[in-house]
Amino acid sequence: MLLAALREEVLNANREIARRGLAPHTFGNASGIDRSGSEPLVVIKPSGVDYATMSPSDLVVTDLSGKIVEGTLRPSSDLDTHTLLYREFPQIGGVVHTHSEFATSWAQACRPIPCLGTTHADYFHGEVPVTEPLTAEEVSEAYVRNTGAVIVRHFRKWKLDPVAVPGVLVAGHAPFAWGKSASEAVEHADVLEYIARLAFRSVLLGAPAAGLPEYVGEHHYMRKHGPRATYGQK
Amino acid sequence: MLLAALREEVLNANREIARRGLAPHTFGNASGIDRSGSEPLVVIKPSGVDYATMSPSDLVVTDLSGKIVEGTLRPSSDLDTHTLLYREFPQIGGVVHTHSEFATSWAQACRPIPCLGTTHADYFHGEVPVTEPLTAEEVSEAYVRNTGAVIVRHFRKWKLDPVAVPGVLVAGHAPFAWGKSASEAVEHADVLEYIARLAFRSVLLGAPAAGLPEYVGEHHYMRKHGPRATYGQK
Amino acid sequence: MLLAALREEVLNANREIARRGLAPHTFGNASGIDRSGSEPLVVIKPSGVDYATMSPSDLVVTDLSGKIVEGTLRPSSDLDTHTLLYREFPQIGGVVHTHSEFATSWAQACRPIPCLGTTHADYFHGEVPVTEPLTAEEVSEAYVRNTGAVIVRHFRKWKLDPVAVPGVLVAGHAPFAWGKSASEAVEHADVLEYIARLAFRSVLLGAPAAGLPEYVGEHHYMRKHGPRATYGQK
Amino acid sequence: MLLAALREEVLNANREIARRGLAPHTFGNASGIDRSGSEPLVVIKPSGVDYATMSPSDLVVTDLSGKIVEGTLRPSSDLDTHTLLYREFPQIGGVVHTHSEFATSWAQACRPIPCLGTTHADYFHGEVPVTEPLTAEEVSEAYVRNTGAVIVRHFRKWKLDPVAVPGVLVAGHAPFAWGKSASEAVEHADVLEYIARLAFRSVLLGAPAAGLPEYVGEHHYMRKHGPRATYGQK
Repeated sequence: MLLAALREEVLNANREIARRGLAPHTFGNASGIDRSGSEPLVVIKPSGVDYATMSPSDLVVTDLSGKIVEGTLRPSSDLDTHTLLYREFPQIGGVVHTHSEFATSWAQACRPIPCLGTTHADYFHGEVPVTEPLTAEEVSEAYVRNTGAVIVRHFRKWKLDPVAVPGVLVAGHAPFAWGKSASEAVEHADVLEYIARLAFRSVLLGAPAAGLPEYVGEHHYMRKHGPRATYGQK
Repeated sequence: MLLAALREEVLNANREIARRGLAPHTFGNASGIDRSGSEPLVVIKPSGVDYATMSPSDLVVTDLSGKIVEGTLRPSSDLDTHTLLYREFPQIGGVVHTHSEFATSWAQACRPIPCLGTTHADYFHGEVPVTEPLTAEEVSEAYVRNTGAVIVRHFRKWKLDPVAVPGVLVAGHAPFAWGKSASEAVEHADVLEYIARLAFRSVLLGAPAAGLPEYVGEHHYMRKHGPRATYGQK
Repeated sequence: MLLAALREEVLNANREIARRGLAPHTFGNASGIDRSGSEPLVVIKPSGVDYATMSPSDLVVTDLSGKIVEGTLRPSSDLDTHTLLYREFPQIGGVVHTHSEFATSWAQACRPIPCLGTTHADYFHGEVPVTEPLTAEEVSEAYVRNTGAVIVRHFRKWKLDPVAVPGVLVAGHAPFAWGKSASEAVEHADVLEYIARLAFRSVLLGAPAAGLPEYVGEHHYMRKHGPRATYGQK
Repeated sequence: MLLAALREEVLNANREIARRGLAPHTFGNASGIDRSGSEPLVVIKPSGVDYATMSPSDLVVTDLSGKIVEGTLRPSSDLDTHTLLYREFPQIGGVVHTHSEFATSWAQACRPIPCLGTTHADYFHGEVPVTEPLTAEEVSEAYVRNTGAVIVRHFRKWKLDPVAVPGVLVAGHAPFAWGKSASEAVEHADVLEYIARLAFRSVLLGAPAAGLPEYVGEHHYMRKHGPRATYGQK
């Protein structure tokens, strides 16, 4: 069996989705990528299988074009979004798609989540962006792949760095988050839900439109991510 | 004992109502129908009995007119709604009534739940409709049966297909959901609550009145229900 | 030890407050009354004691004037509200005071909970009323007893029947609920919280100001409470 | 090992943060101070360590300037806020910082929590204040220490007594709470979250801007804190 350790990590990330309540039923999926070989290999959750009974061997291994390299089950129906993100964002090692409730509510409202506080600033540099809707042509041509394409297009257009902004809301759909590994991706998906909850309530309470002063956000982001990071036991 | 397997499935559906928190106390009920014999038989929860202590033999079997065929307990007080739905919607095999919190809040607000996202579109083709209120005459004549009648009237008037729209909000009351079996009906009741939660928050955040572009909703609905369904291991 | 069975029931009602999450810390209390003897006796929770470690002998027995008849601990600081309600509402056998979150939010907003749905109508005949605030004189004279007095004054003024309206919101404070026993009182306190949650969301969604048509509310209330009640296995 | 009993209490307070859900991940910290020796000593949670696996010996002991006296791990990144509060508020014995959801939402909205009810009045004398944002200079000079400085400045400016107002919202960040011990501080942090939840909903329901009549708030505050306190078994 290929990639035993990565399978284990991706399986755990999928279970974290359920354990943290980030997706009801099987509306969520996590993947990871191994870029060490001559050809990068993606490990992803199979489609519509219950997290509780999933084992490492149920996971599906594909190449970056989505061709199955190992596995007997059908891969997650969102595979083409994952592979496109891996192709376009070479810095990332894991992708998580959830339908977590508050982040999805913002996605459905087609509103970016403004940076209103330091928790947000610790993880996301600036607002959590929301994509444009897919066009009718994009939907009919290749819906899942083009879901990735609208994400990438948004990041290119606004010159966003996927390392500094490790997630996005797909308009009318739900969030995608990523990170340097599947484990970090699911942590980001969880934090994204948390800041979506905070921002929902802050906005209803009339949070200042300008959000957190930029110099505070900058300080927090650099504290965790800059060269002189002071958070945690490093 | 008649219909042992169906009793088991209906009992499980009733327990799912409690397990998923779709109704406090005993404010919910599930039923299933066996249409294989010469006379269709309905299995339904008894009235006011605790889910935890209910056994298959506590369930009540009736015919489509609501006459008890087997059982010593009084059937759910909502029986006449269930039987009317089975008579009028011959495609359905299970009915679930809950008082799940967000769906009931929409029902109390007398507002249909607009289709704002793809999770909604995967399960409901278009908005989740809300009925008209019952008239004073309908209430005094046959309240429970007429609760079914206003549902059916709404579906006829707006030419809704109960397979494509597997649930409804009864104005000022609560949701009913259905499916090809009692198990599917309770899954639909659960998804209905989930999309009611999402839509509540999206609407407070100012979701676009037009909702999800129709071509996206169409794609999602067909993806799960059309002849080329791609979701799950089929 | 006096009133062993009533102590057990009142202890259970106090534990239900905690188990159902109706009051954080020790912000809640339940009592019951035995009216069978020549002098009615009230059993009430002691003040500031943790539900988890409370035993029947920790409960305090008082007469209707609040004088301790049996018990070594100080009774709940809300005792004088309970005894006043028992004196003024001779039909009731149990009183529960909670700080349940949504009912308390309505109380703090000084708004009655309108009857927007059938769950409400099954338990409360008309809106859940909110009292006037206590005057400065009432506060300084006898705050706890006068909390009961504003409740009773409201019921007298608006000719409300405490059997048909088994609870109230004390403005700026929290709910009180009652019933024919301590067990029923805690059930009413729980339903009150549930309908407060529903109404909060329905109101934010723009529920009709008129609420549920009166004839529907009437039907539901009579269905559960009228001479021809059809709900449950009676 | 220094201060074994205080370490145990501070560890428990940190675990209470997790147990009560007051901070996701490791976004929270509790400390306590021993003022009995010639030099006061602070015991604080180490940075970025999981609550579940933390042991008393992982805690860090510092002096009031933040210099480590005992411990091999790096102290919480918020240490300088804690020590500044201990220096400026000599009455307090414990400090707790959380990112509890509703209190943080108010902090992000830069709104004080008005006193709308008696639960609030039992614990906080008047509104829960919100600080001014830090200036750009304060952020770049000494962000964490100046987070304490804006708290103290707010209390001095408005002549607030940290005993009567045992907590604050730091604008755009999150709450800090304190008390005579680490245990009391975490209780205050929990109550603060509870009253933030209530006030959020009451405000959305249109709570009166004036809030609770002052004489009611006064009565409640004095009931618990005045010389004739009547709450609990004292």
